[in-house]
Amino acid sequence: MTAIFPSLHEFNLNNGLSSTREPIRRTLSKMKGMFHDQAAFEAQLSKGDALLYEFYDMGVPDSEKDVAYGTSITYPGKVGDEYHMTKGHFHTVIDTAEVYYCLRGHGYMMMETPEGETQWLEFLPGKAVYVPGRWAHRSINVHPTEPLVTFFAFPGNAGHDYGTIESKGFRKLMVERDGKPTVIDNPRWNG
Amino acid sequence: MTAIFPSLHEFNLNNGLSSTREPIRRTLSKMKGMFHDQAAFEAQLSKGDALLYEFYDMGVPDSEKDVAYGTSITYPGKVGDEYHMTKGHFHTVIDTAEVYYCLRGHGYMMMETPEGETQWLEFLPGKAVYVPGRWAHRSINVHPTEPLVTFFAFPGNAGHDYGTIESKGFRKLMVERDGKPTVIDNPRWNG
Ligand SMILES: [Mn+2]
Ligand SMILES: [Mn+2]
Repeated sequence: MTAIFPSLHEFNLNNGLSSTREPIRRTLSKMKGMFHDQAAFEAQLSKGDALLYEFYDMGVPDSEKDVAYGTSITYPGKVGDEYHMTKGHFHTVIDTAEVYYCLRGHGYMMMETPEGETQWLEFLPGKAVYVPGRWAHRSINVHPTEPLVTFFAFPGNAGHDYGTIESKGFRKLMVERDGKPTVIDNPRWNG
Repeated sequence: MTAIFPSLHEFNLNNGLSSTREPIRRTLSKMKGMFHDQAAFEAQLSKGDALLYEFYDMGVPDSEKDVAYGTSITYPGKVGDEYHMTKGHFHTVIDTAEVYYCLRGHGYMMMETPEGETQWLEFLPGKAVYVPGRWAHRSINVHPTEPLVTFFAFPGNAGHDYGTIESKGFRKLMVERDGKPTVIDNPRWNG
């Protein structure tokens, strides 16, 4: 039996970007319908299709014996009063977990289960958030100027279900109130 | 169905140590028979049972749906001409993979398969080493003064088989020659 060969990649500890692999980039236009303030979204998009976040798919085998890994970088900013965030997703194999280790910045992991439990945990450099199976998850950057950079790892066969969140949204949102990150009920939640 | 709850831990990005969990510590006395120069090992042990490395077991469920994670810290130094290193192991579920992301220091991941393939890859800050299934792996610190700090992740059901390496050893060793890390055949390999 021939083994798969070990591999070496690089992710800059400061900005999260890899020198050995191309990222997947999500610009504002790919986030249509995700932010609660649609007017603010359209106004912002008319000024340009800014990069909101990027992350890596390292192409590890689609197997529960393998570990998908990489960095995720969410850039600072807001759409209306809502902080920049990732789309968020369930895993296709819904009961697979994921760990995120924060390398830089300040943010939150927003999480919820299909049954309606919600939870958010704070990212600061050195914090590790464990997202158990069945919890949808979204990274949110609440820092005024710095990127939120995390290193993530999940089972190679987990897959991504973006559709459920795209159609229903998350139950909770993170917005700025009196200059502070504040969790509110999603006025447009469609569950 | 009640979901397992998300959790937050902390691992210092500089020294690798957690403020929320106790590490597993391996001192020199636990490494009997692992270094090739037995006389140097005994001489060093007679001066004190120094801490060689430590790492974390975060107690995630023993399931292929979960992701075991944590940091590993290998302290600088040598036993004779051989650099400080971890015991090294196969996974009990031998075809499970693992990823290591280097946060600090300079070292190598030494790897080999049961069939005798060998490979070593260099750790520097920002480097990620992917250890595929079937590859035994050991971290080696070649820096004269700094700890080697990595963040690791592997399937929750992988388990550790230390016994095979304890009885056979690795086929290759990393020693200092003319002041430089050099790979040599293990003179005591017992395969
Ligand atoms: Mn995920
Ligand atoms: Mn391992």
